[in-house]
Amino acid sequence: MGIVVQKYGGSSVADAAGIKRVAQRIVNTRKAGNDVVVVVSAMGDTTDELRDLAEQVTPLPPPRELDMLLTAGERISMALVAMAIAQLGHKAQSFTGSQAGVITDSAHGRAKIIDITPGRIEAAIKDGAIAIVAGFQGVSQDTKDVTTLGRGASDTTAVALAAALGADVCEIYSDVDGVFTADPRIVSTARKLDRVSTEVMLEMAASGAKILHLRCVEYARRYNMPVHVRSSFSQKEGTWVIPETVAGEHMEQAIIAGVAHDRSEAKITVVGVPDKVGEAARIFEALAVTEVNIDMVVQNVSAAATGLTDISFTLPRSDGQAAMAGLARIQDEVGYEKLLYDDQIGKVSLIGAGMRSHPGITAKFFAALAAAGVNIEMISTSEIRISVVVNESQVDEAVRSTHTAFELDNLEVEAVVYGGTGR
Amino acid sequence: MGIVVQKYGGSSVADAAGIKRVAQRIVNTRKAGNDVVVVVSAMGDTTDELRDLAEQVTPLPPPRELDMLLTAGERISMALVAMAIAQLGHKAQSFTGSQAGVITDSAHGRAKIIDITPGRIEAAIKDGAIAIVAGFQGVSQDTKDVTTLGRGASDTTAVALAAALGADVCEIYSDVDGVFTADPRIVSTARKLDRVSTEVMLEMAASGAKILHLRCVEYARRYNMPVHVRSSFSQKEGTWVIPETVAGEHMEQAIIAGVAHDRSEAKITVVGVPDKVGEAARIFEALAVTEVNIDMVVQNVSAAATGLTDISFTLPRSDGQAAMAGLARIQDEVGYEKLLYDDQIGKVSLIGAGMRSHPGITAKFFAALAAAGVNIEMISTSEIRISVVVNESQVDEAVRSTHTAFELDNLEVEAVVYGGTGR
Repeated sequence: MGIVVQKYGGSSVADAAGIKRVAQRIVNTRKAGNDVVVVVSAMGDTTDELRDLAEQVTPLPPPRELDMLLTAGERISMALVAMAIAQLGHKAQSFTGSQAGVITDSAHGRAKIIDITPGRIEAAIKDGAIAIVAGFQGVSQDTKDVTTLGRGASDTTAVALAAALGADVCEIYSDVDGVFTADPRIVSTARKLDRVSTEVMLEMAASGAKILHLRCVEYARRYNMPVHVRSSFSQKEGTWVIPETVAGEHMEQAIIAGVAHDRSEAKITVVGVPDKVGEAARIFEALAVTEVNIDMVVQNVSAAATGLTDISFTLPRSDGQAAMAGLARIQDEVGYEKLLYDDQIGKVSLIGAGMRSHPGITAKFFAALAAAGVNIEMISTSEIRISVVVNESQVDEAVRSTHTAFELDNLEVEAVVYGGTGR
Repeated sequence: MGIVVQKYGGSSVADAAGIKRVAQRIVNTRKAGNDVVVVVSAMGDTTDELRDLAEQVTPLPPPRELDMLLTAGERISMALVAMAIAQLGHKAQSFTGSQAGVITDSAHGRAKIIDITPGRIEAAIKDGAIAIVAGFQGVSQDTKDVTTLGRGASDTTAVALAAALGADVCEIYSDVDGVFTADPRIVSTARKLDRVSTEVMLEMAASGAKILHLRCVEYARRYNMPVHVRSSFSQKEGTWVIPETVAGEHMEQAIIAGVAHDRSEAKITVVGVPDKVGEAARIFEALAVTEVNIDMVVQNVSAAATGLTDISFTLPRSDGQAAMAGLARIQDEVGYEKLLYDDQIGKVSLIGAGMRSHPGITAKFFAALAAAGVNIEMISTSEIRISVVVNESQVDEAVRSTHTAFELDNLEVEAVVYGGTGR
């Protein structure tokens, strides 16, 4: 008898009806002979509503208290899910992050899991109960304070817990059917992927695909935990995210896994930086102090005549103000000319493990963008990903034209959805 | 520098504006040179809303999970109060019942406090912070599960914590100005009491006065903790509930403290009980097994001809079904004739420490009821209280006529409220 960890997102437990539906699915998994551990997010928009409430009280809530507030959300949903399971005649016990042994550092609002000591969960399972665990939260090792892992981190809780418990699989339920070749809201012909390697999924998550949280995929890769991304609203198989060694044979033919996009970033350009050793380091040290996460970085070739260069980088828009302030403080020291801030950008990424052994992908990608009239502002590449920064207004067009150019369109969408058995 | 414990009820922290108002009051108390520990209830109707949510999921939520759910309410309010205090430039930290060291037994939904180990609260105070504690909740000694102390028990948390911390006073804030001689919604001329002994307050709380929770007053009496009942919406002094030894000199003249009423009870009559030794014991043993709280008990004089007697008792309406079922099970054994159930009753109580040394109070009370045409169904008395059960429809009239008969009416209400300084 194996352990299955299931994670249900906010849209799956948005109301009493959703909670009952989820409970039935959990009980079915239990009846199929598995030990079941469930991780839940807060109901629907609860977390946002709690944030709003905090904002009404103060523009700058102390992080410790904000964490205390936000963790009420999962407390509500997990207790209700446990009740719904009991109503179906099965034993269930809910556990806060602290009770589940999710030990974190003390970085409120973005705490990292240091260790998981799931003694109470294991005892509950041994006792024949289904354990319901609050996602997104833990307890700090030093101060024993309640912490949160950051937005969307219930996925991370689930995979980390699955690894700690030695589970067979971690199922991540949401309101979409799996991982798609592109966002179906933008590309109507996007196809669901049956399986994708953890490595490719990591690049997709990092490139803006919202289906799985980045840190969750990192955990899955580190602990070789198979993740099944699927919908709680249907019985269909979703997308299996599996270690590359296992996925290898299936992945070989698929050159391109999909097109991801991200509208959450801004671009800062430091104009007129003296082209001397150590200047770039000073700039990024100043940014590190402000705890800003930098994504893409591009340095122009220095103009020989002036000895000056420009450095551009992208970062989360929410970090924009802090970064600009941090850079302003070192203007005299570095001697750069000025700062430019642009938050009307979007990032479009082409991702696929097959990419590394197939030349010509980059050329084809850029040609598709050019044909669609999309101007490329920045470029960055990895072994299995090419990302470009474009004007925000051109993101949709860029995604669609790339998706078509790489023959990712599912021309039989209607047949798949409405046809099926061929009757 | 003394410690002041303040408790704010749900109506005082119903929204962001209320929370900011409360925070200002807390900060003012701090600025006056006190160490401040605050106990909060859930915002407004949050607890009822959470109960509704549970009901939508299952008619019979497991008590452990219901407690997990309901405790989310105080978690939200305490974090917001801590944020509002921080916004005013003062240090504040919120603590769950568990973090505050409120150790209880394992009776979910009605747990009793076994011990309070407020080490983290004391550390916070020492650190210069204002501690905000979740009312109504604790952690079970045996299973380390989250427990609740039962409806309205945040008052109890506050007084118990005040006792454990050796506080100077426990201030209980709500939306009314203090303890009145009767419910002002029924008796428009009811007067606010400036002070009342803990003993009298205990009888008032037990008789249906909702201003203070019964267990809270029991704690106050046991630990000689002065309690100041007041409104969070004004700066007026409220009612001081103080140990009798201190209150004595002030209380002597006030024969009658007030008239309380209670509409939450039902009456069960066991008809035709064989008048033999041990029959009553069997009946109340059967009730004890169902964990029903019995209030008043009356046994009629046995009719000599039949050798049968009737036993009537009152109990919370919510326990009615369980009690009737428990009694039905022993009908054959006891050999009583039948059971009568009446939930159209109300209890009216006259309370005052001066009562014991003043004869004629009972006669005057019953005469007032007779003059108002109120029929008395049951009577019970203590040293400082006389209670009668009447038809529910006559409760208001009984309270008003008694209030007037004992000259409790404040004929200068308008002058007191609108006049004041005499300008």
